[in-house]
Amino acid sequence: MTRQHNFCAGPAALPTAVLERAQAEMLDYRGYGLSTMEMSHRSAEFVAIAERAEADLRTLLGVPDNYKVLFFQGGATLQSSMLPMNLLGKGGSANFIQTGIWSKKALAEAQQLCVSHHLAASTEADGNVAVPRQEALSISHDAAYLHYAANETIGGLAFDYTPQARRADGVDVPLVCDMSSSILSGPIDVSQFGVIYAGAQKNIGPAGLTLVIVRDDLLDQAQAGMPGLFSYKAMAKAGSMINTPPTYAWYLTGLVFEWLKNDVGGLEAMDAINQRKADKLYAAIDQSGFYSNPIAPLNRSRMNVPFVLADARLDDEFLQDADAAGLLNLKGHRSVGGMRASLYNAVPETAVDALTAFMADFEQRKG
Amino acid sequence: MTRQHNFCAGPAALPTAVLERAQAEMLDYRGYGLSTMEMSHRSAEFVAIAERAEADLRTLLGVPDNYKVLFFQGGATLQSSMLPMNLLGKGGSANFIQTGIWSKKALAEAQQLCVSHHLAASTEADGNVAVPRQEALSISHDAAYLHYAANETIGGLAFDYTPQARRADGVDVPLVCDMSSSILSGPIDVSQFGVIYAGAQKNIGPAGLTLVIVRDDLLDQAQAGMPGLFSYKAMAKAGSMINTPPTYAWYLTGLVFEWLKNDVGGLEAMDAINQRKADKLYAAIDQSGFYSNPIAPLNRSRMNVPFVLADARLDDEFLQDADAAGLLNLKGHRSVGGMRASLYNAVPETAVDALTAFMADFEQRKG
Repeated sequence: MTRQHNFCAGPAALPTAVLERAQAEMLDYRGYGLSTMEMSHRSAEFVAIAERAEADLRTLLGVPDNYKVLFFQGGATLQSSMLPMNLLGKGGSANFIQTGIWSKKALAEAQQLCVSHHLAASTEADGNVAVPRQEALSISHDAAYLHYAANETIGGLAFDYTPQARRADGVDVPLVCDMSSSILSGPIDVSQFGVIYAGAQKNIGPAGLTLVIVRDDLLDQAQAGMPGLFSYKAMAKAGSMINTPPTYAWYLTGLVFEWLKNDVGGLEAMDAINQRKADKLYAAIDQSGFYSNPIAPLNRSRMNVPFVLADARLDDEFLQDADAAGLLNLKGHRSVGGMRASLYNAVPETAVDALTAFMADFEQRKG
Repeated sequence: MTRQHNFCAGPAALPTAVLERAQAEMLDYRGYGLSTMEMSHRSAEFVAIAERAEADLRTLLGVPDNYKVLFFQGGATLQSSMLPMNLLGKGGSANFIQTGIWSKKALAEAQQLCVSHHLAASTEADGNVAVPRQEALSISHDAAYLHYAANETIGGLAFDYTPQARRADGVDVPLVCDMSSSILSGPIDVSQFGVIYAGAQKNIGPAGLTLVIVRDDLLDQAQAGMPGLFSYKAMAKAGSMINTPPTYAWYLTGLVFEWLKNDVGGLEAMDAINQRKADKLYAAIDQSGFYSNPIAPLNRSRMNVPFVLADARLDDEFLQDADAAGLLNLKGHRSVGGMRASLYNAVPETAVDALTAFMADFEQRKG
C-alpha cells in the first residue's frame, strides 16, 4: 500500500488514520457482526454513532445551544434551493455577495427559483482577486438574509473578515455562509451566523453528506408548499432522519471529527498547521519568478492555492512529472486552467514540503 | 471477524464479497495511491467507475437505449417531490395507487406540493393485504402518469402484475414505479415503465444514492422554476454530475452490480435464489400454528416478510433469542410491530435456513 499526496479540490483527501479505522471496521463494526452501512439508521448502534458525531462537531466548533446541527443530502448546491425556501416565507429578498463561481451559482439558483434577490456586491468585473470590503456592501432595504461564500474553492479567494449584514433601517439580517471548503480549518464564531452550510467532501467526510448549522429562530420562516425533505424545521424535529440518511457517510464523518478532536487536538491546533502549510506554499510561489498566484495577499485562501506557470506550455509536463513524483490532482479547475493545490485538513505538512521541493526542482530544470 | 445474519429492512445487508473488496481497496484503489472516496468525480479513474456501474446495470436489467440511467441523492422520498415537478409541466394530474405506507407517502408529497393528483385505487380500508386488480383502477381523464410501489417494504405486499395506466380516452400514460425494495431481485421489462426509481439501501448499495431510470420522451415535460438539481433532463445531460455525486456510494453500487453479474450469474439466477428463500420462510410460517402472515398469497413479498407470533407477549423474548443466535434486525417496523425478515439479494439462503430452524426451535420451546 503506497498512499500518494492528494491535492484534490474535492472529493478530497481523508486522513489516513480515518480510512484505516473504517477499513478495520468494514465487515464487523465493533463486534456487532455487520458493517455500519448495513445498520438500520434507527438502531441503537447507529443512533449512537450519529449522536456522537453531532456532539463532537458541537465541541469542535463551539456551536451554541440555540443552533441546530443538521445532516442533509444533495451537496451545497441543493442548499442553494433550500435556503430561499426556508428563509423567505415572511417575504423580503435574498442578498448575495458574488466573489467567484460558487457564490455566483447560489445567486443563479435564486434566479432559477424566481425568488426576490439582490446583488449586494460583486467582484466579478475585477476578476475576483479580492473580496469586497464591508463599506462596499449594499444591503437592500428588504433584505431577509445575506449570502456569501467564505472561501471560493475554484478561485482560491477567502474572506479575511465576517461581513455585517445591516440594512439601512439598522436591522441586522441573518448571515448565511457557504463554508464548504473552509469549515473546520480553524475556529469560527458560529454566533455571527444565521446559517452555515458545507458539502462534506472537503474537510468533513465523503461526498454525499451536507452539514447545515442553523439558528433556532430561523426555523419558522419557511415558504409553504416546498418539498417535505427541504424543511430545516422538519429535519431538526426528525434528528436529520425524515427518511434514510446516508449512514456510511455520516459514520465516516464522525471518524473525521474524532480524528480532529483526538489526533489533531482541536481546531486551534488544526488552524496552526493549516497556516504553516499555506505560508510555505505561498512563499514558494512568491519567491520564484516562475510561479504566480493572482489573489490579493489579504484574501489568499489557505485551503485552495491556484497558481500558474510563467509558460503555460509547460503545464502538461508539470502535471505529468508531479504525478510521477506522487503529487496527485494538481490540475486547476477546468473553468480556469493552470494549477491548484488544495491543502485541506487531511493534507499533511509533509505533502506541502514534497510539493514545494518538486516545484523548485521543476523550475530549476525548466524555468 | 464474525458476520451475523442480517435481516434489516434497510439500510440492508450487503454481499460480504463486496465489503471485502471495498475493504481491500479502502486506502489504495488499484495502485492509484488513494481511496475511491478521495478522487475527483471528474477524474478519468472515477468516471470509468461510474460508467462501468451504469453499463453493468443496463446489462443486468436490459435497459433499452431510449432510457436514461440517473444517479441522484435524497432517497426515494425526494423522488416524491421530483416526479411531479418533472412530469406535470404540461398539465394533467398525478394518479396514485395506494397499497401501504410508501405509496401513501408519495401521494402525501403531491398534496404537500399542491399539484393536481388523483387516487386511482387504495387498499387501505382493507388493511393493505392484497393489491387492487387491474379492473379496479380508476385512472382520471386528465392523468399524466400513474404511480405505484411494486413492493411495500413495511407491509410486505408486492404486485403480482404490472398495472396498465390507460385513461378512458384510450391513452396509455407513463407508469411510474417505486422499486426501492424489489429492484434487481429478478428480471423486469423496463419498457413497460415511464420511470423506475429506487433508493439504493436495499438491493443496490449503501444509503445515499437513488437510482432513476427514465424514458427519453419524459425529459421534456418539466415544470418551470424547480430546483436546478431536480431536473431529470439536466442530470441526464450532466451524466448525473451537475454537482459532486456521492462517489463512494456509486463505487460500492458498481461493486454490487459486478457481484450480481459475475458471482451470482445475473438476475435470472438471483430470481431463483430469492424464490427459494421466500418459499422456505413462508412455508415455515404457514406450516406452524404459531407464526402467521396476513398477506394474500398472490401478493406476498419475496423481499420483506412480516409475521406475528400467536402470543405477542413473546415478541421481546423472540427478538432477544434471535439476536443471541446471530439473527439480527427481525423487529417489525415501529408502525406495525411484530416481526419482519427482509430477504434482499445479499441475504444468503443459509441465513433463511438458520432463521427457519430458529423459529421451529422457538415454537417448540414456547409455542
